[in-house]
Amino acid sequence: MKKIEHIGIAVSDIEQANSNYAELFNSTPYKEEEVASENVRTSFFMMGDSKIELLQATSEDSAIAKYIQKRGEGIHHIAYAVDNIIAERERLINAGFQAIGDIKNGADNKLVCFFHPKSANGVLVELCQERG
Amino acid sequence: MKKIEHIGIAVSDIEQANSNYAELFNSTPYKEEEVASENVRTSFFMMGDSKIELLQATSEDSAIAKYIQKRGEGIHHIAYAVDNIIAERERLINAGFQAIGDIKNGADNKLVCFFHPKSANGVLVELCQERG
Repeated sequence: MKKIEHIGIAVSDIEQANSNYAELFNSTPYKEEEVASENVRTSFFMMGDSKIELLQATSEDSAIAKYIQKRGEGIHHIAYAVDNIIAERERLINAGFQAIGDIKNGADNKLVCFFHPKSANGVLVELCQERG
Repeated sequence: MKKIEHIGIAVSDIEQANSNYAELFNSTPYKEEEVASENVRTSFFMMGDSKIELLQATSEDSAIAKYIQKRGEGIHHIAYAVDNIIAERERLINAGFQAIGDIKNGADNKLVCFFHPKSANGVLVELCQERG
């Protein structure tokens, strides 16, 4: 893993969160994107070599809606950039980390996959690789 | 704010977490440090230009112990590097963000201060500045 690609934060109202984080960071989102397959609206702030991703559910079925119902707003996942998502996913599975689903298309032009929070001391881990 | 300085993860057993994260990252902690004033043991992994800090409580009074009792293991805070912690803290207070306590000495040779999770959509925010 090369770096923290982004931190995903589950929010109830992305307009409110955008303006709150714009104030916190003294900057503005560089991208806003709806990911229909995940039922989320996202926005991204640059923060050094990493990003902060705000996520609002667009459906009650989305993982973000369920997260907020259970725990309230807060950090949903940490995403790490990898060069080879297939190899890295396999390495972790072989080391006993529990994958959630398969590799799929994510926001921000990435291939992504996830590992269960119980594999990483309560943290939902995402791997992501830039799509070619 | 310049970058994500580190992400703090509350863990129950830092030895277990160290070896779990060593496997996850395929690396080892570059520093382990007890912060008596905060009642925590910490360890740090480099991750690109940022760090992952694991935190284990050394007392039931520590914020980390209370966090784990309430929510289980997981991400406790995001720390952002700043050049001038006094000015940045004041800017945020003036913008309505709720400070927790004053500026104090933190782990890893830093001056640190905190803002309440309700100020940042459920995320405990730390500012930190390298000590001169």
